[in-house]
Amino acid sequence: MASDDKLSAEDRLIAEYFKPIATHPGALALTDDAAFITPAPGTDVVLKTDAIIGGVHFFAEDDARDVARKALRVNLSDLAAKGATPLGFLLVLALPGESSPGWLEAFARGLGEDAQAFGCPLIGGDTVSTPGPLTISITAFGSVAPGAMPVRTQARPGDRLYVSGTIGDAALGLALRKGAAPALAPAQRAHLLDRYLLPQPRLGLTAALRFAHAAMDVSDGLVGDCAKMLRASGVGGEIDLRATPFSDAARTWIAAQPAAIEIAATGGDDYEVLAAVAPDAALDF
Amino acid sequence: MASDDKLSAEDRLIAEYFKPIATHPGALALTDDAAFITPAPGTDVVLKTDAIIGGVHFFAEDDARDVARKALRVNLSDLAAKGATPLGFLLVLALPGESSPGWLEAFARGLGEDAQAFGCPLIGGDTVSTPGPLTISITAFGSVAPGAMPVRTQARPGDRLYVSGTIGDAALGLALRKGAAPALAPAQRAHLLDRYLLPQPRLGLTAALRFAHAAMDVSDGLVGDCAKMLRASGVGGEIDLRATPFSDAARTWIAAQPAAIEIAATGGDDYEVLAAVAPDAALDF
Repeated sequence: MASDDKLSAEDRLIAEYFKPIATHPGALALTDDAAFITPAPGTDVVLKTDAIIGGVHFFAEDDARDVARKALRVNLSDLAAKGATPLGFLLVLALPGESSPGWLEAFARGLGEDAQAFGCPLIGGDTVSTPGPLTISITAFGSVAPGAMPVRTQARPGDRLYVSGTIGDAALGLALRKGAAPALAPAQRAHLLDRYLLPQPRLGLTAALRFAHAAMDVSDGLVGDCAKMLRASGVGGEIDLRATPFSDAARTWIAAQPAAIEIAATGGDDYEVLAAVAPDAALDF
Repeated sequence: MASDDKLSAEDRLIAEYFKPIATHPGALALTDDAAFITPAPGTDVVLKTDAIIGGVHFFAEDDARDVARKALRVNLSDLAAKGATPLGFLLVLALPGESSPGWLEAFARGLGEDAQAFGCPLIGGDTVSTPGPLTISITAFGSVAPGAMPVRTQARPGDRLYVSGTIGDAALGLALRKGAAPALAPAQRAHLLDRYLLPQPRLGLTAALRFAHAAMDVSDGLVGDCAKMLRASGVGGEIDLRATPFSDAARTWIAAQPAAIEIAATGGDDYEVLAAVAPDAALDF
């Protein structure tokens, strides 16, 4: 994990906060400019990189621990959609001058917790100072059987569409944060808010995704992402919203305010896996 | 290569400019959220990520083609120092609102030229919009024989220090750009300016680096980077500046102004490989 001259004040923080979570052997305890992984022979390495920016993808007042966890999880969600087992990740941090040690400490703690929880250790990265907003770029690596990574372009006529969990919770959670006030029980509100705050990467679908013709993670809303997948595959399709899985909280809200189904079906941040599967595949998905 | 909602205007540009240079089979022609590589069985994959920021690491008026080439080459230089053969790279572009199609076109052209020249194709990436300055983050991948990646921490007492080319040219080139006016021939001036503008990644040292106990690329100045390597290895060392390779241009300048040797030895942007090698290794380095 190299750091540029202007961040010499951060060097100690990197050693203090990031070195302890760089548990991958190829991280070389962040003593080097580069790192390495040793993929199991005969596997493909899935690559995913996603950047999030302060003021665009998260808010300055957001808890640093949650920002870190979300930054990692949005990448893990893509690995999940590709049937990949996490190997590790690289972190690029572009830090504004006013970054506080307390913020970095909380950020590193959140990152370390999720790295351990999802078996995806920090392998290396780069820190630079920026006159702009905090920018976090993560590149995550995963392994899949050779040629087994499901792509977006191979959905076929007749396939059934599956999602790995309930749809719309995060978008409804965001609506709550923005002031919507439906009649929900406290636990229902908490469920929606939590689903917005932290994606749950659906790792562990590897076996099921072998049956998928096409798969992707739903991050920009079910309707839009499904349209993208079908268009990329050159097929048409239909989503029956009566058959789409909604949480108890979402169902309660939609029952009271039917228009909420549009938020649920088109809002983003679901981070569930969408897959197109042959109708005769015996799937417990 | 995913792009966020705010960049839908850029989608066409990505398809037009980046898809043609995404020649790696695992890039899936940038139709997917993820990409993959298939490492040769029994190899390690070297990972290197470096970010450069407008106004910090390059200037707004710099030619977009050169910015792209430098962004890729600083990563390739690290692969070279690790004895790695390039496999490909991921690109994260955080684009300010005012990015012009012309800029992106030139950027992609420069990137494509170097990707081809160095056998390191684009595999994927992410584009986001930012309220801050243009930020370019590249992650490059290379392959090495298992366990063969030379690290920074294993220099030993008695090792000899080698560099892969002349030292100080880039720092002197920067001094020229800042207004220094030594008595140099036009070709000497051009040499120094060019060495500042574009690093030459010293790929192809793989065989030689097998004999290295420690190696790193010199990006922050020979003296400082050498000190880092020796400190990380827990050894002391000495650089004999009379034995350090300098270009004809640098020698001419230093002969006229002896203080210029300090710029040459401590300035940055050399992007040569520094290696510590056992004295009995038969090296034609």
